[in-house]
Amino acid sequence: MADTVFSRIIRGEVPCHKVYEDDRVLAFLDIYPISRGHTVLIPKEPAATIDALSEESAAAVGRALPRIARVVMKATGATAYNILQNNGPMAHQAIFHVHFHVIPKYPTGEGLGIGWNAGRLDDAQAKLLLKAMVS
Amino acid sequence: MADTVFSRIIRGEVPCHKVYEDDRVLAFLDIYPISRGHTVLIPKEPAATIDALSEESAAAVGRALPRIARVVMKATGATAYNILQNNGPMAHQAIFHVHFHVIPKYPTGEGLGIGWNAGRLDDAQAKLLLKAMVS
Repeated sequence: MADTVFSRIIRGEVPCHKVYEDDRVLAFLDIYPISRGHTVLIPKEPAATIDALSEESAAAVGRALPRIARVVMKATGATAYNILQNNGPMAHQAIFHVHFHVIPKYPTGEGLGIGWNAGRLDDAQAKLLLKAMVS
Repeated sequence: MADTVFSRIIRGEVPCHKVYEDDRVLAFLDIYPISRGHTVLIPKEPAATIDALSEESAAAVGRALPRIARVVMKATGATAYNILQNNGPMAHQAIFHVHFHVIPKYPTGEGLGIGWNAGRLDDAQAKLLLKAMVS
């Protein structure tokens, strides 16, 4: 995959406001926050999308999420927050290195806007999907 | 925490369209999908929000994400998708057991709607936040 600004942050070539780091992951303040305390958590392993990430790095990112969430809540006073990870340009991904946004949601509405147009799962469709997923 | 429908699904008291299961996690089709193939991944450990989840369960959920993403892409043909995890009623959480949505995004627009009103991180605010986060 192509080099991204996140690889340059990992290598220390671009500065960041570091929130947390261990052998496998790095978290820092998003410089284009959509709410106060908006933080980004990335694996150090370069992978464009999470389907291409190793299980070891994916586990390390998962393991760090509760800690990052608590730190963001403590620092901001936020009691609600969204975690969002986008894959592909059509899904709003702009930097092609896996990243998880931790985004406080405030009573003012500041935070992630969610468009949710739910239907009802049809049994026939469920069977078709599961056949393709589980086989 | 209160018992939820997800605990009842884990215990087998409520059926689900199972996509994946291991000792620590379970994935199944969302019965109110916002796009075709919309899948939910949960830890078996009951925790209302991810800040309250053990690191072990959080790692197990993270580890399963690439696999679930690949399965959903394979079954649907989707090339883009969002992963969303909501914490707190204000952040659109409706079932108070940690869950990750894996939501295909299609060229038709079907999928997660994202409202993203970004600002620019102010250095003074970054310093204040980091002081509260890292200390």
